[in-house]
Amino acid sequence: MGESKSVPTAPPGRPNLDFKIEHTDRASGARAGVLTTPRGTARTPAFMTVGTQATVKSLSPRDLREAGVEIVLSNTYHLYLRPGADTVERAGGLARFMGWDGLTLTDSGGFQIFSMTDLTKIKREGVTFKSHLDGSEHFLSPEDAVRIQAKLGADIAMVLDECTGYPLSFDKARQSTDLTIDWARRSREEFLRSDTPRPQAQFGIIQGSTYEALRRRCTEALIDIGFEGYAIGGLSVGEPKSAMFEMVEVSTSGMPPERPRYLMGVGFPQDIVECVERGVDMFDCVMPTRNARNGTVFTSRGKVVVKNAAYADDLTPLDPECSCYTCANFTKAYLRHLFQAGEMLGPRLATLHSVTYFESLMREARKAILEDRFPDWKRSVLERLKSGDGET
Amino acid sequence: MGESKSVPTAPPGRPNLDFKIEHTDRASGARAGVLTTPRGTARTPAFMTVGTQATVKSLSPRDLREAGVEIVLSNTYHLYLRPGADTVERAGGLARFMGWDGLTLTDSGGFQIFSMTDLTKIKREGVTFKSHLDGSEHFLSPEDAVRIQAKLGADIAMVLDECTGYPLSFDKARQSTDLTIDWARRSREEFLRSDTPRPQAQFGIIQGSTYEALRRRCTEALIDIGFEGYAIGGLSVGEPKSAMFEMVEVSTSGMPPERPRYLMGVGFPQDIVECVERGVDMFDCVMPTRNARNGTVFTSRGKVVVKNAAYADDLTPLDPECSCYTCANFTKAYLRHLFQAGEMLGPRLATLHSVTYFESLMREARKAILEDRFPDWKRSVLERLKSGDGET
Repeated sequence: MGESKSVPTAPPGRPNLDFKIEHTDRASGARAGVLTTPRGTARTPAFMTVGTQATVKSLSPRDLREAGVEIVLSNTYHLYLRPGADTVERAGGLARFMGWDGLTLTDSGGFQIFSMTDLTKIKREGVTFKSHLDGSEHFLSPEDAVRIQAKLGADIAMVLDECTGYPLSFDKARQSTDLTIDWARRSREEFLRSDTPRPQAQFGIIQGSTYEALRRRCTEALIDIGFEGYAIGGLSVGEPKSAMFEMVEVSTSGMPPERPRYLMGVGFPQDIVECVERGVDMFDCVMPTRNARNGTVFTSRGKVVVKNAAYADDLTPLDPECSCYTCANFTKAYLRHLFQAGEMLGPRLATLHSVTYFESLMREARKAILEDRFPDWKRSVLERLKSGDGET
Repeated sequence: MGESKSVPTAPPGRPNLDFKIEHTDRASGARAGVLTTPRGTARTPAFMTVGTQATVKSLSPRDLREAGVEIVLSNTYHLYLRPGADTVERAGGLARFMGWDGLTLTDSGGFQIFSMTDLTKIKREGVTFKSHLDGSEHFLSPEDAVRIQAKLGADIAMVLDECTGYPLSFDKARQSTDLTIDWARRSREEFLRSDTPRPQAQFGIIQGSTYEALRRRCTEALIDIGFEGYAIGGLSVGEPKSAMFEMVEVSTSGMPPERPRYLMGVGFPQDIVECVERGVDMFDCVMPTRNARNGTVFTSRGKVVVKNAAYADDLTPLDPECSCYTCANFTKAYLRHLFQAGEMLGPRLATLHSVTYFESLMREARKAILEDRFPDWKRSVLERLKSGDGET
């Protein structure tokens, strides 16, 4: 299995995702590539900014472009509940609905169902859950998740998987992995059967908790099923960093090299660069945007807690190395005032910087890969990140 | 008094405000002019968008420019409490603090003190009030209001006046007007004495409730004192529209024609065009921005309540005649979703449209004045405004 294995291509007549690897760093597994769909391209390694409810909170699509964003992730669970998949479909799909001319990816809804809702009942057929909005009961099967995402119409859809926590016993992890594999098979069958209203690719998700054997088994099973891309799920859920990196290595070593690799829910700049080095192409995480809204922003010198009293009269920008609209025009003193006063412009300007910072990090990583100097670049980034207001 | 009276010019050595009237409409009192300060210009009639806490809620300075804003009003009461006038001064004054390269005006703080705070005690010396933020007690004299505004450093500062409600007995209105005149005199003396750190103009405020005699007396007294501009205060506080328009006429008839005239706290598009016709040059109101944040936007066809269920699948823009970023890129269906989902982008896009609409209205008014067709234009605007979701 692994690098030599032939994997299924896109379904006939649906050229829904092309992935071209431009270069692999000489001294590491880091890859620079380009994802292409009928609607556009995204360069990799890519950080997908999260737009949960068909909007990256506080930012406009124009802001996203300016920050360098090329692909946005939205949450199926939220969009299914509000405004509903039919409304999004009638508006021409997620990207058109939100006025975004770049690529989009939707998750399956599973993560939110397992983490946000009460009384989740998991059966072989699917998941029963209660809406966090009004308590209404809903049932979601793997097939439903495919059909809903077809209506949402993102460039990339994810299969429904069971999202487990940490720690988890081997037996429970094995049972869960089996369920995830079964659901992945049903999801693919539905995907190939369904009359998708627009071109869409589908990614499988490798689970297996922190168990190498389960990760390997799941990877092999998903490759047998065949997807346009493969994701690594169930990490960054409380396990030690070493375990996370090990599971990423185990997974990527078995993944087909010519297909995109997506590490879900990661993360911190430090973790991203470590996992780019291990051959991951795509990332997503709510942290840069969520933390920014709360006044903690990532900068080239580590995190800055905007509300700190020390910044009350600080007339310097958030990040001296950043040229985003926020850093080019506003002082820490002003941003602190906006947060102290509860003004919406505070979260907005902080988010714009934070997203710009993550995108710049990915561009720099890409450049370092293309120039065969990724490990050196990684070391310098990690060094710089140690300054700032404290632990990131 | 009135048109023939000579009025004091700017203090020697402080060329702080130039006002040039380009044209007065042939068939009405409507004036098209240009305000110039050492920092820039604003065309009149002007609507001043309100940026209470040194930010127009949800909008960036770049958005303001794009919407056509040329002058922003901020509230001294809020800035005095947070972040404090010293912080704003150290940052280079209000405009620089907020990254705004246009003109600014600060009110005196009086309106907020009278409307937002508990236990307001008014004495001849000044006003004692408790902060709405922490209950701390503060004292503000007319001289304090001048000194604080000098630190805030807006292009235009307002004198402290007593803000009264409606209805008010003649006796109480007379006493209050006398106090306002006394405070205006002390404010001007302090203004001329104080070592203002940067060029600033000062406007007096005509009070007098709905009593013609008091309005006339106040106008004359303020002209005797001499200011760079004159405002009409204490209207749009519950009195009938007819009384408001009458008091505006009484006031403008006595105001020096060569100085800018500012009607405070007005308002609705309908009221603005009526008062432009009566010779008013400047307006401000929180309504366009506040209502937009709550999902009610003004359009060329009257108000639109974005959350209306009727818009759930409406793929048309808010205002078919508007070319703002919001109307050019987003549907009512999407905007409704943003409001339903409590997303910050909703208020932001709605505010951007609303501000653009008000600025467009002022540009159209200006053009109609320059082309001597103001009354016809006014009639057509009022006619169009009758459509929409209901009463504005």
